[in-house]
Amino acid sequence: MKHLVDLTFKHEHPSSVLESALYTLNAPSKLIRYQLVHTLCEDLGLCETHANLFGLALECVHAYSLIHDDLPSMDNDTIRRNQPTNHLVYGEATALLAGDGLLTKAFDLIAHSGYNDHVKVELIKLLSRKAGLSGMILGQQLDMEFEKQDITMDDYVKMSALKTGQLFAAALMGAAIISNDETRLSHYQVLGENFGVAFQIQDDLLEVTSDAQSIGKSLSDANNNKKTCVTIIGVEASIAYLNDLFDDIEQQFSYLGLVGSKTHQLIESLKARKK
Amino acid sequence: MKHLVDLTFKHEHPSSVLESALYTLNAPSKLIRYQLVHTLCEDLGLCETHANLFGLALECVHAYSLIHDDLPSMDNDTIRRNQPTNHLVYGEATALLAGDGLLTKAFDLIAHSGYNDHVKVELIKLLSRKAGLSGMILGQQLDMEFEKQDITMDDYVKMSALKTGQLFAAALMGAAIISNDETRLSHYQVLGENFGVAFQIQDDLLEVTSDAQSIGKSLSDANNNKKTCVTIIGVEASIAYLNDLFDDIEQQFSYLGLVGSKTHQLIESLKARKK
Repeated sequence: MKHLVDLTFKHEHPSSVLESALYTLNAPSKLIRYQLVHTLCEDLGLCETHANLFGLALECVHAYSLIHDDLPSMDNDTIRRNQPTNHLVYGEATALLAGDGLLTKAFDLIAHSGYNDHVKVELIKLLSRKAGLSGMILGQQLDMEFEKQDITMDDYVKMSALKTGQLFAAALMGAAIISNDETRLSHYQVLGENFGVAFQIQDDLLEVTSDAQSIGKSLSDANNNKKTCVTIIGVEASIAYLNDLFDDIEQQFSYLGLVGSKTHQLIESLKARKK
Repeated sequence: MKHLVDLTFKHEHPSSVLESALYTLNAPSKLIRYQLVHTLCEDLGLCETHANLFGLALECVHAYSLIHDDLPSMDNDTIRRNQPTNHLVYGEATALLAGDGLLTKAFDLIAHSGYNDHVKVELIKLLSRKAGLSGMILGQQLDMEFEKQDITMDDYVKMSALKTGQLFAAALMGAAIISNDETRLSHYQVLGENFGVAFQIQDDLLEVTSDAQSIGKSLSDANNNKKTCVTIIGVEASIAYLNDLFDDIEQQFSYLGLVGSKTHQLIESLKARKK
């Protein structure tokens, strides 16, 4: 992805806001959204004629959401991707603008990609809804509002499916659109959402079993009175819930005829992640 | 525009972040960017078969930039569009997310509009560049950085052409794209940028000759040590510079064969604006 970033950001005017945007985007990370697009396109037999600009666009959206989420008015975090959070290095105002810039860049990348116009439009429709006011942003808002109230496991699942699941769903659905597999979009959506909830539960479990250095970000949930799967149903029930979710995910791979595929292997490899 | 907002936001999930976004978007305002798209499409003879969703998208981008610009970490303003700023009503975190949501919505609107796929892609290319890291956002960044240094009139013009001019340019260039007048895009760009600088100088003059109630927003430039045209060259020279700019704008209308057009009349009507 570093190569693509170098290529696609090189026309941008040098500035501290550009530097701030690249500080978070280029920090070593798992790049799961990028990888999901890449592996599913391969699994669906797409001849890789285009650079994975949709995957890069998703990573831009993810990086923007991290920068804004870490701001003092949100979670006020100090470590992200094993380095000081963006606003601690560049100041709050520049971090805010860098986030805005990354979000804008995501759509720039898709519009300037090598996909045909119809695919570009479908990808932008998809991303703008998944990342928008009824998608990821709503999930962030619920996450904040839940700090001030008691919630049920249903509330938690809804919030996680929005906050984390929508971008995973966008990755899989986008790969399907690029690969002309549009008839099964709703199945990719469910798979992405389930994986998002599972991923969030993993994060919640790591928060209580790890230290900041191992997972590369602040352990701030308790300080922020965040509702996590662990605070709602406890560690053991969270592990059981997670295992059930991964069973469901297995069944979805089976239904999609993608057992043993690269995408399946990618998600399998993340089952036991420690950060 | 209210009608379009009602139609296009109705599928969004009700939430406080949606309410916060609409609070600023729907507050009475001049809607210049929306009007520029509308009038130029009419002037270029476009049969109005589509709702002006590109104009609405530009107003979403403008509203997001106002919400983020007013935040405590930026200008820390208290009045905007004759009402308390967004974060004073909804809190900083929700205001931040509402801005993110409006920016995302802008691309959603274009992608879901009735324009054909080619036009949609061209409009998204245009908007993402004009509003992006080398466009409006760079202008905002320069505006902040200039608070801490002495600047020349050239610096000021560059900053204003980015911060205010790029969205005006996007409005005119977008209307030209929609109306199949793409051969003259560079002229619309210059016209938009010049009008943006003129508009910014007007704002700077109003800041020293008006009160907050008349112009409907905080008079915070002096408190923020903002570099304005007036602080750089004084009131009289600013008025002279403004008149020269409007003379240039007249010549551009003449060159484009649009003297007396609705777009020309719109800009004429804004020459003597008091807010």
